[in-house]
Amino acid sequence: MAEMQQIVLARHCDGPPVPEDFAVETLPLPEPKEGQFRLRHVWNSVDPGTRSRLSGGDSYAAALPLGKPVDGFSVGVVEASEHPDYPVGTKVFCAAGWRTHSIQSGRGFLGKVPEALVPLSAWIGVLGVPGLTAWFGLKETARFKAGDCVLVTSAAGPVGATAGQLAKAWGAARVVGIAGSDEKCRWLTEEAGFDAALNYKTTGDLTAAIHEAMQCGVDVLFDNVGNAMVDRVLPLMSMHGRICVSGQVADYNVAPEARAGIRHTAPFITHRINMQGLVVFDFMKGFPEALGEMAAMLASGRLKAKEERFDGIAAMPEAFCGLFKGENFGRRVVKVGEE
Amino acid sequence: MAEMQQIVLARHCDGPPVPEDFAVETLPLPEPKEGQFRLRHVWNSVDPGTRSRLSGGDSYAAALPLGKPVDGFSVGVVEASEHPDYPVGTKVFCAAGWRTHSIQSGRGFLGKVPEALVPLSAWIGVLGVPGLTAWFGLKETARFKAGDCVLVTSAAGPVGATAGQLAKAWGAARVVGIAGSDEKCRWLTEEAGFDAALNYKTTGDLTAAIHEAMQCGVDVLFDNVGNAMVDRVLPLMSMHGRICVSGQVADYNVAPEARAGIRHTAPFITHRINMQGLVVFDFMKGFPEALGEMAAMLASGRLKAKEERFDGIAAMPEAFCGLFKGENFGRRVVKVGEE
Repeated sequence: MAEMQQIVLARHCDGPPVPEDFAVETLPLPEPKEGQFRLRHVWNSVDPGTRSRLSGGDSYAAALPLGKPVDGFSVGVVEASEHPDYPVGTKVFCAAGWRTHSIQSGRGFLGKVPEALVPLSAWIGVLGVPGLTAWFGLKETARFKAGDCVLVTSAAGPVGATAGQLAKAWGAARVVGIAGSDEKCRWLTEEAGFDAALNYKTTGDLTAAIHEAMQCGVDVLFDNVGNAMVDRVLPLMSMHGRICVSGQVADYNVAPEARAGIRHTAPFITHRINMQGLVVFDFMKGFPEALGEMAAMLASGRLKAKEERFDGIAAMPEAFCGLFKGENFGRRVVKVGEE
Repeated sequence: MAEMQQIVLARHCDGPPVPEDFAVETLPLPEPKEGQFRLRHVWNSVDPGTRSRLSGGDSYAAALPLGKPVDGFSVGVVEASEHPDYPVGTKVFCAAGWRTHSIQSGRGFLGKVPEALVPLSAWIGVLGVPGLTAWFGLKETARFKAGDCVLVTSAAGPVGATAGQLAKAWGAARVVGIAGSDEKCRWLTEEAGFDAALNYKTTGDLTAAIHEAMQCGVDVLFDNVGNAMVDRVLPLMSMHGRICVSGQVADYNVAPEARAGIRHTAPFITHRINMQGLVVFDFMKGFPEALGEMAAMLASGRLKAKEERFDGIAAMPEAFCGLFKGENFGRRVVKVGEE
């Protein structure tokens, strides 16, 4: 009998996730009913934001029950269909979790991959939630405008790298990234067009270094790290500066009481700072336009997207856990099926 | 020779201000030159926000140098004039500091008191910066809309009390205040029309009590207290909730490193929270309209404004220092001259 595999949550994470928190399950391959199709996943993503659902007691995002497949994004090929709009061979991106196959009805966050200008995996990376988060976080949440000086944290990650490049493309006066290795910093300045990049692991006085590297203050902090970074940068913000809370990778593993605190809040009043978080699905109406523009930028080489590729669904837990050690350099995608 | 008095900063404050941080000075009464007039102050205000300029090392608001008169708002009567637009007898409100008299040129934050519908002292209270902060903080910063559930902290203070009453007048679904005595709480519900009020000093589990009192979640937190309160309320915020950072009275006396930290930041993403501070002078174009409407509400009794009156300029340091002990109940105004 034909089979599929999925990765489920075996126990709730306590602190940084470890591969033993997950288990591989093998199931019979399901058949689509009328109005459904079966997607063979080709690439699955691992996403830091997923961590917020993996602690048992989390009171915000609904906790993922034990035994359920873990969240992630996928791009794949329809291999069996009872849905007139999705014939066999159609390429589709969707949010379908850590599986090799899924049954879909064409609803929810799901779309057809329009054409083969870019690698298929881009549709769960720079043309997926990370790229869209960068686009809408910068444009809508941070209300970016040409001439802004932008600081991006976790800048070599897929969200940060895209945010910094979009800021440059849209006329930022200066874009500085913070990342965790000299290699990442070199890529940011030499490949991705950042004006400067700082290695937070080796820079002594990081606050002073940010201040110096920015030259023009911080109009926009595009943060993927969390409270400690926001607290550090607040005193460096310019008048009417904006903080986009895009991600909180340093805080997802820590109970709220144990997190770093944001203390330097005087600039909220003195400098009229605005801080706003986003979930990119609030902006779905704008996805087609954003994806069209980013696909063109990517195809023409004006937008660089770095990927780290893993092989086989069993590699997903390891790929995910590494996100919280700062191991990843670019989008982590896992090949789980044939294109 | 005729004289005037002023209160100057005698030493930088370290922690909560004490009366010994200030000194009374007597000076010759100055004469206005051409284009100037001399204002006899009738009422001066003491303002918690002033504290942020009184620590020597503060790096945000420019520190007040020793020996300089302390900031505050005043309303008074022109008693000598070389300015054609401000004849003797004109009543004027302005930001002129802790003095009995000042020389003015008609520029800056300054206006004529339009008519005698309300007590003169209202023009440095509900018709001054506190009332305007409530108005624009609620309308612009918090983007209040009818149907919102609003939580106001330091609610018996002049900013909070006005914010809560404006929210009710503008169609809030529910307005809850937090204050520091049963007497204040009674005034809020019985006089000012708040739906509920909580005494933070005697309520055991304040977070649970807020949750219960709000009934409908918190769409708008109008905060005058600071980090600890923001941290407490964040997990109670509704989707797309807004935090207006109107004041930080609990934090002004504390070095940033020693302040309470905001740790419960997950809702910034999960609930798309927006947090924004304000300085009311950014909204000066709208002052005439806001003042006109609030003066009418005040004159007709639809807006209640509680005052605590002190007598004589020498009482200003004591009146100011009490703001940081939660002593004040309403706007503290000091009579420093004859009307």
